[in-house]
Amino acid sequence: MLNQDNFQIGGEMKTSTHQARRAKALQALVEPGVGAVLVTNRHNVRYLTGFTGSNGMVLLSANSEAILYTDPRYTVQSKQQADCNIRIARGPLTKTVAKDVAGARYRKIGFEQDHLSVAQFGALKNLFPPRVELRPLSGVVEQLRMVKDEGEIAMIRSSVMLNSAALEAALKRLKPGMSEADLALEIDYQSRKLGAEGTAFDTIVAAGRRAALPHAHPGSAKIEAGMLLIDMGAFREGYASDMSRMIHLGPPKPRYKKAYKAVLEAQLAAIDAVRPGGKSIAPDRAARRVLKSYGLEKEFIHSTGHGLGLEIHEPPRLGKQDKTILEPGMAITIEPGIYIEGWGGIRIEDTVLVTATGYEIMTPTSKDLRVF
Amino acid sequence: MLNQDNFQIGGEMKTSTHQARRAKALQALVEPGVGAVLVTNRHNVRYLTGFTGSNGMVLLSANSEAILYTDPRYTVQSKQQADCNIRIARGPLTKTVAKDVAGARYRKIGFEQDHLSVAQFGALKNLFPPRVELRPLSGVVEQLRMVKDEGEIAMIRSSVMLNSAALEAALKRLKPGMSEADLALEIDYQSRKLGAEGTAFDTIVAAGRRAALPHAHPGSAKIEAGMLLIDMGAFREGYASDMSRMIHLGPPKPRYKKAYKAVLEAQLAAIDAVRPGGKSIAPDRAARRVLKSYGLEKEFIHSTGHGLGLEIHEPPRLGKQDKTILEPGMAITIEPGIYIEGWGGIRIEDTVLVTATGYEIMTPTSKDLRVF
Repeated sequence: MLNQDNFQIGGEMKTSTHQARRAKALQALVEPGVGAVLVTNRHNVRYLTGFTGSNGMVLLSANSEAILYTDPRYTVQSKQQADCNIRIARGPLTKTVAKDVAGARYRKIGFEQDHLSVAQFGALKNLFPPRVELRPLSGVVEQLRMVKDEGEIAMIRSSVMLNSAALEAALKRLKPGMSEADLALEIDYQSRKLGAEGTAFDTIVAAGRRAALPHAHPGSAKIEAGMLLIDMGAFREGYASDMSRMIHLGPPKPRYKKAYKAVLEAQLAAIDAVRPGGKSIAPDRAARRVLKSYGLEKEFIHSTGHGLGLEIHEPPRLGKQDKTILEPGMAITIEPGIYIEGWGGIRIEDTVLVTATGYEIMTPTSKDLRVF
Repeated sequence: MLNQDNFQIGGEMKTSTHQARRAKALQALVEPGVGAVLVTNRHNVRYLTGFTGSNGMVLLSANSEAILYTDPRYTVQSKQQADCNIRIARGPLTKTVAKDVAGARYRKIGFEQDHLSVAQFGALKNLFPPRVELRPLSGVVEQLRMVKDEGEIAMIRSSVMLNSAALEAALKRLKPGMSEADLALEIDYQSRKLGAEGTAFDTIVAAGRRAALPHAHPGSAKIEAGMLLIDMGAFREGYASDMSRMIHLGPPKPRYKKAYKAVLEAQLAAIDAVRPGGKSIAPDRAARRVLKSYGLEKEFIHSTGHGLGLEIHEPPRLGKQDKTILEPGMAITIEPGIYIEGWGGIRIEDTVLVTATGYEIMTPTSKDLRVF
């Protein structure tokens, strides 16, 4: 492969959508005296311009149209995707950014301090006129990205539907005795065959006792009679989906049935605690309350969920500490689980949309106790 | 999926290997007065400790054993993988690093300026005692990584062999009329089935005229009579492989045959210019000389190759400008190509090892004109 990056051209989106996002971002980003903001996080660049290349920066300015900076590999692609000014840099992007900044009259320029390396910062400092003060910003565009617009919801829905279809297609090939890695590969294959760009994370397939490891990496362990935990997600037109389901090979014992019932009840209670205007910690509390009533609260060792969109993990976080107020358009996962060493684990997860009146469970896959 | 990262446990390696690497790194990193170096690039962390988790930092010190910092998700894994001191941080790693730094007497601490964000740097500045001066470093461990040791060469070889086997397995399923994306998916599937952790980059399958795009993303275009460019690589035990091959469906025309011969001759000449003690630009010059003799030099629009190892693209770069002297143990690609709009493109690529006496072509796949 050449010493350059590849690219994927994502779904098309109306020009006005990106313009509107940039206007909102400027409102949120530009404090008095800050004339421009340099966006370097590639997901934020995509969100604000539609450009999906691996090398891009955006300069948002209160007084002029946004400028996307990229390199000659993306000359054609950037024109097809981005609806703002485009500059093709024949060297480091920072140099070309600096030229435009020198020609403007900015005194303060904001930058994404979590997405700029010390070396890049040093380069900007050297290249910008001495009058320019660089102002660190954190997570501002990410905050805007929490609430999805209609186009984004449609893409997440398409990703969720694909993900569920991929599970069913892969389960048709499930045979006792196959390895976790074999089933994970089938899942990934079916997902791509159905049109995913790729998986949203490394697919988790954990059989029997290995289900007690929340992040088991699928290995050579055989899938035999007993429980099977599957956690999978797809990227479709850039947007993520995320789902966990349990399968039981052979007749389950009462202990499994009871634990499954407890986790499902916790998951449904957590979903039922999702409401616009409500706190992001409410679902987590609801899930813990149910598990406590079953004496299983100590086995729930992670948070209840997270936002998803252009990234598989985005704000908000549905744990004990997050302080987000849920809003219509937020796409989140609800995924309580219990993990018992030497026995196994159970996790049930849906992708859920916060709506104007409550919530919508996007994931269509049944959560009935499933025996194979 | 939970709001955490997954991990893959890579191949085991002897303790002494990592210790030796750390000793070398210290020699290269520690200038007079610099008491310690904080390594934050995750490939460098893996190289120096064996730890493959997604969240890790290493503090190398001239006076005491190295310390690996990670979080509770990796308590078990870090112990299995790393052969140095380990600290499990219950918050940002930088906080725990700072505690150790406060207890030591360092005055100057080096850091990887290309792999530390401005926000992380600010956190360290705040947390470290005021006496500590932070010194930016660039690419020092990456320079060491250029020369592979025996264990690394074995893993690259294993990755290269797997990659070639995956191509043959996928080509058995090639049928005229299938889409580029279908064939790319078959390649990725076979590669995983043979034991790859995943692909080293997005597989390129470009049919007919689309082969003129050096980084064509496999799409719905049908593979029909004509040329077919495939560029593929695997990750195996953490190490990359990289190969490009041409297939021709149906009998090729004289123009294709002639162009194929030219590129192959250029590729062989470039390989033949690989020698220990030689310059990294020599292969590039050799390839261009041959293509010029065919009047095709202007169609060769990229550099001749790149190093590979824990990353698919590592130093050295085999282009017009790099100034590396080739050394035994360097693993590089040799991949000249020509691209003609409206006609197509041809690229031939092997993974090549610099040896004590010259070179070894690691890729076993034939480069004879291949007609399907």
